[in-house]
Amino acid sequence: MFRPELKELITAGKIYDLGQPWHPGMPHHPLHPPFVYGLARKHGDVQYEGGGSSANDLFAFGGHTGTHLDAVGHISKNGKLFGGVEAAREQDYLRGLSRRSIEETPPMIARGVLLDIPGFKKVEVLEKGYPISRRDIQETVRFQNVKIESEDVVLVRTGWARYWDHPALFNDHEGVPGVTLEAAHFLVEAGVRLTGADTTAYEVVPSKSMEVHVFLLAEQGIQIMEMLNLEELAREKVYSFIFIAIPLKIKGGTGSPIRPIAIR
Amino acid sequence: MFRPELKELITAGKIYDLGQPWHPGMPHHPLHPPFVYGLARKHGDVQYEGGGSSANDLFAFGGHTGTHLDAVGHISKNGKLFGGVEAAREQDYLRGLSRRSIEETPPMIARGVLLDIPGFKKVEVLEKGYPISRRDIQETVRFQNVKIESEDVVLVRTGWARYWDHPALFNDHEGVPGVTLEAAHFLVEAGVRLTGADTTAYEVVPSKSMEVHVFLLAEQGIQIMEMLNLEELAREKVYSFIFIAIPLKIKGGTGSPIRPIAIR
Amino acid sequence: MFRPELKELITAGKIYDLGQPWHPGMPHHPLHPPFVYGLARKHGDVQYEGGGSSANDLFAFGGHTGTHLDAVGHISKNGKLFGGVEAAREQDYLRGLSRRSIEETPPMIARGVLLDIPGFKKVEVLEKGYPISRRDIQETVRFQNVKIESEDVVLVRTGWARYWDHPALFNDHEGVPGVTLEAAHFLVEAGVRLTGADTTAYEVVPSKSMEVHVFLLAEQGIQIMEMLNLEELAREKVYSFIFIAIPLKIKGGTGSPIRPIAIR
Amino acid sequence: MFRPELKELITAGKIYDLGQPWHPGMPHHPLHPPFVYGLARKHGDVQYEGGGSSANDLFAFGGHTGTHLDAVGHISKNGKLFGGVEAAREQDYLRGLSRRSIEETPPMIARGVLLDIPGFKKVEVLEKGYPISRRDIQETVRFQNVKIESEDVVLVRTGWARYWDHPALFNDHEGVPGVTLEAAHFLVEAGVRLTGADTTAYEVVPSKSMEVHVFLLAEQGIQIMEMLNLEELAREKVYSFIFIAIPLKIKGGTGSPIRPIAIR
Repeated sequence: MFRPELKELITAGKIYDLGQPWHPGMPHHPLHPPFVYGLARKHGDVQYEGGGSSANDLFAFGGHTGTHLDAVGHISKNGKLFGGVEAAREQDYLRGLSRRSIEETPPMIARGVLLDIPGFKKVEVLEKGYPISRRDIQETVRFQNVKIESEDVVLVRTGWARYWDHPALFNDHEGVPGVTLEAAHFLVEAGVRLTGADTTAYEVVPSKSMEVHVFLLAEQGIQIMEMLNLEELAREKVYSFIFIAIPLKIKGGTGSPIRPIAIR
Repeated sequence: MFRPELKELITAGKIYDLGQPWHPGMPHHPLHPPFVYGLARKHGDVQYEGGGSSANDLFAFGGHTGTHLDAVGHISKNGKLFGGVEAAREQDYLRGLSRRSIEETPPMIARGVLLDIPGFKKVEVLEKGYPISRRDIQETVRFQNVKIESEDVVLVRTGWARYWDHPALFNDHEGVPGVTLEAAHFLVEAGVRLTGADTTAYEVVPSKSMEVHVFLLAEQGIQIMEMLNLEELAREKVYSFIFIAIPLKIKGGTGSPIRPIAIR
Repeated sequence: MFRPELKELITAGKIYDLGQPWHPGMPHHPLHPPFVYGLARKHGDVQYEGGGSSANDLFAFGGHTGTHLDAVGHISKNGKLFGGVEAAREQDYLRGLSRRSIEETPPMIARGVLLDIPGFKKVEVLEKGYPISRRDIQETVRFQNVKIESEDVVLVRTGWARYWDHPALFNDHEGVPGVTLEAAHFLVEAGVRLTGADTTAYEVVPSKSMEVHVFLLAEQGIQIMEMLNLEELAREKVYSFIFIAIPLKIKGGTGSPIRPIAIR
Repeated sequence: MFRPELKELITAGKIYDLGQPWHPGMPHHPLHPPFVYGLARKHGDVQYEGGGSSANDLFAFGGHTGTHLDAVGHISKNGKLFGGVEAAREQDYLRGLSRRSIEETPPMIARGVLLDIPGFKKVEVLEKGYPISRRDIQETVRFQNVKIESEDVVLVRTGWARYWDHPALFNDHEGVPGVTLEAAHFLVEAGVRLTGADTTAYEVVPSKSMEVHVFLLAEQGIQIMEMLNLEELAREKVYSFIFIAIPLKIKGGTGSPIRPIAIR
């Protein structure tokens, strides 16, 4: 459902592209597959009558490679998916998840809010392993003079999108900044529908418990987007907008590539 | 650019999902790769501290598998991509197309028009190999009392989406209905920005020349969508709407999976 | 079972490599997937304690990409796999073939015989679409002064391996030379266990019936190898040898990549 | 080169299959891709003239998925591959390794020796995380009354192949048994050409340094095989044999699937 009152958020009609590109060598979390690509056929390999020819490709990657949306069923706690669903009964190596998979996620159109944490902190980019606290979020909301409303999509910027072309930096094993558990609690209390960040794992990594994933997905059923590109929104101080993300309807999928956009 | 005057097309705020699902065994054109899928890890395979666990997946397919958008550079004519670009210079098995690739396609938001050819012809579904003529399109426009405007996205329904679960039927080797060259000329004269259909190849197949692809992509630079699901739009007689499709920014890609939507 | 009397075929102990390399852009039959490859991790992306690091990769291809061995169940005739097995009951998009799949093929060690057709015909390479007749085979056997014995593996050379680096030539759509149906009958009468060639399809292509595949696989249960590299054997006039090919035990697989060897 | 004096190792002519099967859901090291598989076409999807039809498949996995052979260049130490080769100069996300890749590994035919550690220790299977010491190896050699000769291939059995159908057990995160650094030194002193085991990582895991990999591959240039199935050899007390493994010639590859065999 597109809530028609969102129409007023469209003002200039500018579209912001919040997705990173897909290409071999792009950063990927070490536990997820990389993106591999190749042409299957080049122009000229096969010739149609009349002079036509075509090129086409083959690629392999996964539901958490590149800018993506986690399915609710990506994470379990004590063997349970969100809502007490027994994970062991609903998963299969061949077919993926029979419940809580990404195919259950409809196209997402909602009011979006950017929280530009480094913008508030007057830094270019958050430092390694920086934990974004509840207070960081509250103060950024105030500083940006924006309101988080129920059903909003909240995008948290760390500035790490700029490391995209340096996979070792982007996935820094000494620590990637992220949203803390208490900050995630704040977002849930505010009624957010969906949240995301410009890093590999939304929360601080390395993490032994992945506690923010467990809380949001397994306990709250709130989906997470990762590897967003929020640089242009931040540069232009666009703090609220229409947000659109349309996951592929992958049967059984634990996540889907997306290329979200903001319209202002 | 989202043209703000499109806002008036949003009335009830209903979102129509125009994409087919992705799953092993889904139909695919014999010259393009199928979709293969598997879990890489099940819940429980690796346990985090505190009881969390995660599942994730790996898949392989191509830019023309499932509901997708062709890049302009998918097709060449006499060795040239649209605009006289020498295909041989711009293609590489490793990197795909260095020009005219899908990464050049921005998120698409436009006025969309449905042409429900079987609706006009009072049939459930077009017959095998039926060639949709210029006149079919003109008469359907009149019958539906809709106008095709410059920059519109025109979606042509054959009704074949209903064969999705029967791949041999969907790709019927005796003939799939499609848009003829003269009908494609009509759409170009009308100024369409993008067009698509609910079949495997938009035009009639088998075809020895792929003449509609050659005309639209290589000569006109107009991109094509295939394997759309237009059933719900047709059922509800929604003939004009806001159309949104956001291809993945695959570097060098000859096409991209999409899950387009219509908002009314 | 390795028949110990084969030991006498090992004389100099030289190993001949009969496989083509795997790499992006390698030739592949248009109906089969290409080979795509990429590193998942480079040295330095992740550092172990003590200075170690590792690189690893991801690839996608199919059981008939590159030098490979067809499973008996690759081909059916009138809906039946070899031995009257109903194909429809034994196939599944997710799991492949439940009978006649490549996992049923044991490691192959046998006496091998090379039939160097262009060697006999005093040409470098067979011409486009050349049909290798029963008489070509008989005369090559005589010319080479070699005997085909029961349970032998017979490798038929056309010389097309030299087009490997020119995929459009290797898959020439005007015609690739190959073994004719009458020649295949000769091989079956001679009791061969397995046969192969250095082309994309063993038999002459294009072919509307794939009659040699149907005869050998579906009617006789004799497996076929394609895209062998027989150049070195031919150059050194090695016409009989120990032949070894070990397919991967891919459950349900319709074929497997192999890198066969000859020992002399 | 096949050393003809190896011929005497062929006695009964029995072939032992040392490979595990490939199938979705098979165990894989968490840092390597899983195996995913699907049919691209089923029998009947496309019909040839005369009643023939074919099935074929698509799969995705990596060079360290399933029974495999590491390329020398899989591991680096302080940025160097074996022989002082600068890793950073020889690697590329698109093309893999330009030196020390798996394509440099010829087909391997050698004398093989099984070291059945649990056989010597009178247990069914080694316990979790058990470190196989130099002394374990020396005593097993003595117990089995076998000699390790220069250029031998030494296969170390832990018994973990029996956990193949239980991926979480096979990759047990509390510890998988393996060869220790001092034991690896012993094998190098003995002049082994190649070594392997029936576990996921040859050495004890988890390991923060992967010290045995670093020693064997980066310092000694000795390749490692993993996920072998040594159960039948052990059951029949076959301690020396002709060993054959033929890696696929994957350009740039960091490893290759193999299905090794032993002949006795």
